[in-house]
Amino acid sequence: MPLVVVGGVAAGMSAAARARRIDPHLEILVLEKGEHVSYGACGLPYLVEGRVRESEQLIVHTPEYFRRERNISIRTGARVAAVWHARREVQLASGERIRYDRLVLATGASCDTCGIAGADQPHVFTMHTLEDAERMRTFLSQRRPRRAAVIGAGYIGVEAADALRRHGLRVTILERSEHALGRADAAFTDAVRRQLETHGVELRCGVRVDSLDGLDADMVVIAAGFRPNVDLAAEAGIEIGRTGAIRTDERMETNLRGVYAAGDCAEVRHIVTGRAVSIPLGTTANKTGRVAGANAAGARERFTGVAGTMIVGIFGMGFAVSGLSEAQARAEGFAPVAVRVEAKARPSYFGGTRTTVELVADRNSRRLLGGAVIGEEGAAGRINVIASALHVQMHVEDFEQLDLAYSPPFATAWDPLLIAAQQLRKEL
Amino acid sequence: MPLVVVGGVAAGMSAAARARRIDPHLEILVLEKGEHVSYGACGLPYLVEGRVRESEQLIVHTPEYFRRERNISIRTGARVAAVWHARREVQLASGERIRYDRLVLATGASCDTCGIAGADQPHVFTMHTLEDAERMRTFLSQRRPRRAAVIGAGYIGVEAADALRRHGLRVTILERSEHALGRADAAFTDAVRRQLETHGVELRCGVRVDSLDGLDADMVVIAAGFRPNVDLAAEAGIEIGRTGAIRTDERMETNLRGVYAAGDCAEVRHIVTGRAVSIPLGTTANKTGRVAGANAAGARERFTGVAGTMIVGIFGMGFAVSGLSEAQARAEGFAPVAVRVEAKARPSYFGGTRTTVELVADRNSRRLLGGAVIGEEGAAGRINVIASALHVQMHVEDFEQLDLAYSPPFATAWDPLLIAAQQLRKEL
Repeated sequence: MPLVVVGGVAAGMSAAARARRIDPHLEILVLEKGEHVSYGACGLPYLVEGRVRESEQLIVHTPEYFRRERNISIRTGARVAAVWHARREVQLASGERIRYDRLVLATGASCDTCGIAGADQPHVFTMHTLEDAERMRTFLSQRRPRRAAVIGAGYIGVEAADALRRHGLRVTILERSEHALGRADAAFTDAVRRQLETHGVELRCGVRVDSLDGLDADMVVIAAGFRPNVDLAAEAGIEIGRTGAIRTDERMETNLRGVYAAGDCAEVRHIVTGRAVSIPLGTTANKTGRVAGANAAGARERFTGVAGTMIVGIFGMGFAVSGLSEAQARAEGFAPVAVRVEAKARPSYFGGTRTTVELVADRNSRRLLGGAVIGEEGAAGRINVIASALHVQMHVEDFEQLDLAYSPPFATAWDPLLIAAQQLRKEL
Repeated sequence: MPLVVVGGVAAGMSAAARARRIDPHLEILVLEKGEHVSYGACGLPYLVEGRVRESEQLIVHTPEYFRRERNISIRTGARVAAVWHARREVQLASGERIRYDRLVLATGASCDTCGIAGADQPHVFTMHTLEDAERMRTFLSQRRPRRAAVIGAGYIGVEAADALRRHGLRVTILERSEHALGRADAAFTDAVRRQLETHGVELRCGVRVDSLDGLDADMVVIAAGFRPNVDLAAEAGIEIGRTGAIRTDERMETNLRGVYAAGDCAEVRHIVTGRAVSIPLGTTANKTGRVAGANAAGARERFTGVAGTMIVGIFGMGFAVSGLSEAQARAEGFAPVAVRVEAKARPSYFGGTRTTVELVADRNSRRLLGGAVIGEEGAAGRINVIASALHVQMHVEDFEQLDLAYSPPFATAWDPLLIAAQQLRKEL
């Protein structure tokens, strides 16, 4: 009896590949509405920028590869219109019905442009699929736009702005909220703004765009209004969580037995708050897909949750966050204390650049709740140490004791993380 | 009543500075046998290499700075000959006696060249102080040696070899044991050897050097036989541990009340084995100095231990370790399982280079015991994640769940650390 996977990008293909490993004989079918499967969607901004030269470079494996090497059947251009769980059937848009025994929904998220008047014009883009990116490349080379507006200052918006600026366009980012990169943190947003402005990109927060009319731009990228694609699931009677994504347990199973959800369409647990969240990221898609696929194939695996770790490169500077900002922590009912330190990432005599570390802890429990790292070097490594500490609910006192690597070409004797922890302990 | 600190480099000056913060009125005196205090000893190889141009760049603060800004008295050229704890007095080599209330011993370690015949010749060097490095620089520029032998393949030996090779010398490293960088790990040593050989440095293990006669070298660096400087302590009745370093509790206090030890002369607890170890590193010197200084000034702080985290750059490649290797784990009574994976540090389309991750876990408890990372990029960040996991005795299953940062300019969607953890879980 077959496993059917709806969606063939990060989560879907991770699920299919993992299910194959667990059960070499399982019949596995992936239904993908687009033309491609298994591509690195996080590379799209760099395809637009040109650093990635060809779409093919982003395609990890072709459908043919999966068929031949993994015995996984893939149908592209196959849009699933309905799920009839009582009959264990999915129905394609063509009307065709396909039986399943286990089902993995990896339907992703999309950018909801419906609310914006004029979003259907040819100079308006989203950046969600390889086709989107290719269409932007063509537009850039053929129309030579000079002025771009990017709607949304999430990571895709900021990366798109960076890419377009490198094509020589004047770029303005319009963000509805007061903060960039989804981080309720004024200092962090200021740092993002400074870096953007240094490189000629304007960031305007608190701007709601309902219509593209009157926008001074001959190219528009809509990178806002992300919503998990849950209509299919909701109509099938699958429970949707408070976040708007599909509710799952730690085995990535939905309320319907044998139906799993993974990737951007699924809720996951936040390891700091313990609450369900919907944070669309490629890493989480891969991990939850893997767990869903394993369980769908008969194994018992679990996904313990996310820290909300994210890094974005803006003109060569890494902006990384994990866990909660001070404002987010307060909103979650903690009594947050935050510090922000600037220190050299490596010794001055080695040309080390400045890095900023923010740490947030709870005054009552002394637990670390989150952090941010900004820097040209080592930002990923440092945020990963913070993320690792969040996974184990580490206290500030213990964080301060971490035995981190030091040698002049790589770090300073007192790593900026430890300096921040010392500061934070004083404030607690 | 004064705090006297014996030794004014990393541990000693950390202790003095921290004591000052705890107690603004405490009388603090640092006795340093050399000419300089507070210098970055870890930068010495780069001073020899020339990347650090002047000794002054390695001097963090001058004695004058400490007197003026911190109200800490410093006497350089002040060698302590004896400690009379019953009278709370230290005696200088000059015969002068100085009273103390609390004492911090930060006497460091030295390279014991006594066993090697011919070590007192002018072309033979150790690399321990600024004076050592300056003498080497002068020798290099005036004598233009062509053939160097480095005794010892610990981190100082390897860094010295790198520095001398960049001066154009033919360099051979002679190591008594079978492994490099103090890591009982054949694959790791092979990787070190390959990197050295690629850059024209020969590594010969299992070679015991008792005499420099017959060594085909017009310059010799002895970077072996490191011993904690404990004679002063031992003669004062301070207990020396099994490792040869001064025994301390987690407050860095010795068996004599009010006498603390910190830095290379002091034992610390290994967080994986729970046993006392002597691992001379600048980071640990700073941390234990800080704790000793705080407690000597009346605070109550503790040092929880080291993971043995270390990183060394060899011709641009980072070699990093933390915790135990498989062989070390077996020797400590664990039932180790180890995996070694090679994966891209960043996506191929971003020019990511290969990185090697080794993870070791205990088959019975499924605890992570150690790891190693080798790579041109991200080695420090990745070993720090491993170190953080070791601090909390993390299980492989939990390590595999870490929410690490991903974005194409910084990492791959599946970080090499997570790929290694997946592999390791299969093997357990």
